[in-house]
Amino acid sequence: MVKKTGGALFSTLNIDTSSNRPLYRQLETKLRQLILGGELAARTRMPATRQLAADLGISRLTVKNVYEQLIAEGFLWAKQGSGTYVEQLQSNALRPQSVAEKQHVVQPDPSLPPRARSLGHSKATTRLDRVRAFRPGIPALDLFPRRAWADAYSRVLRANNDDFLGYGSSSGLEELKQAIAGHVLDHRGIKCSSSQVIITSGAQQAFSLIAMTLLEPGDVTWMEDPGHIAIRDSMRLLGGDVRSVPIDVEGFSLKYAIRNYPKSRVIFTTPSHQHPLGVVMSLQRRLDLLDFANQSESWIVEDDYDSEFHYTDRALPALQALHSGGRVLYVGSFSKSLFPALRLGYLICPSELASSFAAAQTLLSQNVSLLQQKTLANFMVDGNFNAHIRKMRLTYRQRRDRLISSLEQHAPDLFELEPCHAGMHLIGWLKVPQASDSEVAECIWAAGVDCLPISIFCDKQRLRPGIVLGFACAVEDQIEGNVMRLTEAVRYYLSAQSGA
Amino acid sequence: MVKKTGGALFSTLNIDTSSNRPLYRQLETKLRQLILGGELAARTRMPATRQLAADLGISRLTVKNVYEQLIAEGFLWAKQGSGTYVEQLQSNALRPQSVAEKQHVVQPDPSLPPRARSLGHSKATTRLDRVRAFRPGIPALDLFPRRAWADAYSRVLRANNDDFLGYGSSSGLEELKQAIAGHVLDHRGIKCSSSQVIITSGAQQAFSLIAMTLLEPGDVTWMEDPGHIAIRDSMRLLGGDVRSVPIDVEGFSLKYAIRNYPKSRVIFTTPSHQHPLGVVMSLQRRLDLLDFANQSESWIVEDDYDSEFHYTDRALPALQALHSGGRVLYVGSFSKSLFPALRLGYLICPSELASSFAAAQTLLSQNVSLLQQKTLANFMVDGNFNAHIRKMRLTYRQRRDRLISSLEQHAPDLFELEPCHAGMHLIGWLKVPQASDSEVAECIWAAGVDCLPISIFCDKQRLRPGIVLGFACAVEDQIEGNVMRLTEAVRYYLSAQSGA
Repeated sequence: MVKKTGGALFSTLNIDTSSNRPLYRQLETKLRQLILGGELAARTRMPATRQLAADLGISRLTVKNVYEQLIAEGFLWAKQGSGTYVEQLQSNALRPQSVAEKQHVVQPDPSLPPRARSLGHSKATTRLDRVRAFRPGIPALDLFPRRAWADAYSRVLRANNDDFLGYGSSSGLEELKQAIAGHVLDHRGIKCSSSQVIITSGAQQAFSLIAMTLLEPGDVTWMEDPGHIAIRDSMRLLGGDVRSVPIDVEGFSLKYAIRNYPKSRVIFTTPSHQHPLGVVMSLQRRLDLLDFANQSESWIVEDDYDSEFHYTDRALPALQALHSGGRVLYVGSFSKSLFPALRLGYLICPSELASSFAAAQTLLSQNVSLLQQKTLANFMVDGNFNAHIRKMRLTYRQRRDRLISSLEQHAPDLFELEPCHAGMHLIGWLKVPQASDSEVAECIWAAGVDCLPISIFCDKQRLRPGIVLGFACAVEDQIEGNVMRLTEAVRYYLSAQSGA
Repeated sequence: MVKKTGGALFSTLNIDTSSNRPLYRQLETKLRQLILGGELAARTRMPATRQLAADLGISRLTVKNVYEQLIAEGFLWAKQGSGTYVEQLQSNALRPQSVAEKQHVVQPDPSLPPRARSLGHSKATTRLDRVRAFRPGIPALDLFPRRAWADAYSRVLRANNDDFLGYGSSSGLEELKQAIAGHVLDHRGIKCSSSQVIITSGAQQAFSLIAMTLLEPGDVTWMEDPGHIAIRDSMRLLGGDVRSVPIDVEGFSLKYAIRNYPKSRVIFTTPSHQHPLGVVMSLQRRLDLLDFANQSESWIVEDDYDSEFHYTDRALPALQALHSGGRVLYVGSFSKSLFPALRLGYLICPSELASSFAAAQTLLSQNVSLLQQKTLANFMVDGNFNAHIRKMRLTYRQRRDRLISSLEQHAPDLFELEPCHAGMHLIGWLKVPQASDSEVAECIWAAGVDCLPISIFCDKQRLRPGIVLGFACAVEDQIEGNVMRLTEAVRYYLSAQSGA
């Protein structure tokens, strides 16, 4: 049985001859929709090309090409000497789907897989969009030598060497690995060969690689609390059993961890400058931690996130540098020493793990942009990288001093400032101990100023309320104005609280 | 008890005054090593600064600064009016470590964690270093508009907008997401909003995100066999129970999978152009697959890896475009349409999963380089992207024709060529069915020509021997020479085999 052509149906096709989309694409898409939607039923005879062209006011050739394309795709079939018919396709897709109606639901769907649901609860994605003072962890983007970088990039790209456009080795570009090995020797006392360096797209990717390579599902990992939000969440997502370890005056509380938790497979720590509290791990604690890792065959992940910026003393050498035993994985990043959009970081691992990490990198995301790697290698070899760090060390010290003096002037009754000898942020403890720092932070954001509440870094720990203020990205002459706006917001919040 | 200063020990310090490394760093590092190595024992009294300076031929101030630094670090302590002593540190790190000796072992260490060991067996890392003809999956790097790209990058960087140096949103830059939504509508018939687009650092990272977001450990995933090596390995690494599904003339054999395997959570497929066989999935099979996914609540991952390059007909619309039911995840890449070192790709997901994927991206690697994202968005909006694809479509067709004619001329007795209407590679089936294609490939590599054996894509399937030849990256006038070298290598291998 051959069905009749739906003339009325075709007159609703609404081809827009003034659109930028080619006519054949418009017609093709609409006919597919009519067939898949069941409006053009199986075995319907299609109008003759001449007739449809006339009805739509388009050329016959266009209609003919569309029919041919849809025949090739299996939507239509042509019967010799008889005409063109809609193919007989069996599918529930030909009826409207109930699932389709879910597409505009805003609430997380309870039918989502468990991981997809739990991902909705991560606090790690908080406000990563625009940069404002005093966002923690952002360097002085206003002072980056853009021209020098653009020129370096352009030179690599136009050097007529196809290799830098390809994939490259998954562990990274040899020249960059050598430059990094030289940098960590000079700055952090780390002796390693370039074969121990794995280039990553930032520190967070290094942590993912570590979890994928060293953790079995359910393995215990010890993690500083307060500590790095995204590491904690990613370890949990990748199957780690994360246990929170408090910080004492010497840093990571090893005794607490040993007393309270099962043996760990991986220990995350920030010995140079605890994130976010700023405690420097004592030498004895470092040695204890290394001894423990050796005895228990755990891996220590040393996150050296802002080690380039020490203002009073030089930094202690890295944990990795104290140790010949191959149980430390050292993670560094260029997001803070250069800029985040570069997306380059590195992992220094024991030699026997290097090939496993390189393979994990291939499976996780193939590799890191070779073009940006080569640009950075040149930038380091030419001395631009060291010069920039030296300059930023002076700048950040000035910005820190300006922030401290502004807070001391405008808010001596509100904040007790944690001493700050290193890094890119300052902690202001609220002198009103019953305040909620997350509510205070929201009021500050609403006033157009950035910060993070201490509580966002906490897992089990309950600390007194405080806010973390990043000074590195704050332009000097705007610091005082921002402090005044911030102070006003906090005062407003506190008065509303005490009035309530 | 105070130990005596080891005078002989200090005379072996070997400070190199002609080195680029500052003297204080050299001295500091060596003293730390002596203390950690146990050669300078606890409570040893250090030589006076004046004496050590004289012994080493360096300034007293340098020695004084080094002592102060090591006191600050906890290696030494100063007793008022008495001198400087080595701190009493308790650690097994003070003795040479047995683990240290393992560092130069070449064989994978059996004491490595299971995942680290299994990563050593992945075939996905094969030869990603330099680009040669006929490497599969590499575009025409020689014809990329380098100058236009470098200028676009430079304009973004120097626009004095700090936002493009920062982190940006973890799902990607809105302008780029809109440009991609427009591109997939025009080229693949996909209707989606920019909020469904997640920017990734290439297709492989999209697959990792999918596994991290949708798979629970042990979930069954159905995967084409032969198929994409790195997807298969990464799904296994991330805990998926991968089952291999053969390909028939209509594509992915759904019947085989339903008959033989437990219900899948995720189904990986390349419907437009099966990887690597090139089969185009029939419309009926597409509809069957969509129906199955709806009924069984599985997710289909549509890897549309080289859909831009069809030479005879236009491509079929994407699976995603046939479907209103939100069970298809569409993955695209710019590694093949532009160049691999860009490290940009995308995932188009159902709306209700978008926020979970954005959170997973944050945890996996924060986000993708905003600077490259913005450059690409401008490149697309300006029409450069479409112009490049159009040009490459012509170029690749010419390169394909040249490769086919060269093989037909020089090796009609060796290869049966699979018809090739799309994509960037050609399959040559070996006419000697008992040959090992991996051995043949090794001979070809040794002759300076690239290719991949079909067997490397296989999991359980045993196909007849064949090689995959990428023609996109092969410069026209070098194609015949490379074919001759390749042919000679194969003949040499076959004669050695028949002689053996």
